[in-house]
Amino acid sequence: MKMSQLCEASGVSVPSIKYYLREGLLPAGERTSATQAEYGPEHVERLRLIRALIDVGGLSVATAQRVLAAIDSPDLPLSYVFGVAQYAISDTSLYADVPETSPGAALVDGLIERTGWLVSDDNPGRRGAARVLDTYADLGQQHIVDHLDEFARGAETIARADLASVAHHSQVADMAETVVVGTVLGDALNASLRRMAQEHVSYQMFPADRGAESPGSEA
Amino acid sequence: MKMSQLCEASGVSVPSIKYYLREGLLPAGERTSATQAEYGPEHVERLRLIRALIDVGGLSVATAQRVLAAIDSPDLPLSYVFGVAQYAISDTSLYADVPETSPGAALVDGLIERTGWLVSDDNPGRRGAARVLDTYADLGQQHIVDHLDEFARGAETIARADLASVAHHSQVADMAETVVVGTVLGDALNASLRRMAQEHVSYQMFPADRGAESPGSEA
Repeated sequence: MKMSQLCEASGVSVPSIKYYLREGLLPAGERTSATQAEYGPEHVERLRLIRALIDVGGLSVATAQRVLAAIDSPDLPLSYVFGVAQYAISDTSLYADVPETSPGAALVDGLIERTGWLVSDDNPGRRGAARVLDTYADLGQQHIVDHLDEFARGAETIARADLASVAHHSQVADMAETVVVGTVLGDALNASLRRMAQEHVSYQMFPADRGAESPGSEA
Repeated sequence: MKMSQLCEASGVSVPSIKYYLREGLLPAGERTSATQAEYGPEHVERLRLIRALIDVGGLSVATAQRVLAAIDSPDLPLSYVFGVAQYAISDTSLYADVPETSPGAALVDGLIERTGWLVSDDNPGRRGAARVLDTYADLGQQHIVDHLDEFARGAETIARADLASVAHHSQVADMAETVVVGTVLGDALNASLRRMAQEHVSYQMFPADRGAESPGSEA
């Protein structure tokens, strides 16, 4: 199909398509003349992936380019692809300026020892968790910190489901795409499921609240 | 203490303190003259909370004001405070423009039926989860969708720990503060724990990857 048809099939505008081609997020089509190229269904699929990473996952174009390059490198170990995806979504102020040693970092080390998790020193989760735990402590929220092992158990349940969905594939390229998509969009799914589960568990603990007005109904 | 001492004790600048006073995030001090007021340790604590919500939780000043107002209303049911906190952090493009009926919304309804969760129609998690599930389906990532029940089990484990940390308090005001802090900062903690658990579980499934180069080491 031509560029105009690619635009129609994908719902992505021609200027955006040209931008993604220029930045290397979208592979070039097959050149048919000096000014025209032919695109296939794989281009439609790739455009869908690009838009999901940017619109739903909130990645910048530069970050999306980095994770797509990882998908396109079939000889990278899967743990490396995980790392690229994790870094892509951890690139926020939350992970900046975290001191290497802090009470929170020590709590994370203790957790890793108790759980027996194998976690490399540069896993971005270490710094993120330490930062939040330090903040809880500063705010006098020791009760939340006390439940760290339970939060970790929930995270491990989720990570096992993440990896199980990766293992369905037999092709490394498909695995890498599932790693990237699941890592980038999974945080939003997990946060959404947590919102629903919180409401349910809070009714169990405080039954009198059921049927009370909710802030959503006034919005 | 005077304004200048409050600045020193909290590490927050005088212009910021004045801004928070004006916007109602920080309660006024006790007036001692036409131009001076006296502040106490509760003002230092409140400033710490404001900064955590804004700097670590990523809330806007307007949103922080809304959740602080919920903390300050001792007669609100706790489920309402949860709702305010959940809406505060769900106020992103992820939850906009989601159609009420979609395959993802039907998957969420099915999940709620299977788990027996009590979830009100306006819980923002419903729309967020539906949006991500629709995106997975569009991307051909049915394998991730197939593990929805396991993701939900992990979320419920986390929500039980959330509520257990709330139940430690005997005062409603303290409970409300834990609800807000845990909801706003907890997503970042859970995402960080997931990053670490993913690395561990991926070594278990793909042992050959252990010791491979990681993207963090080149950064």
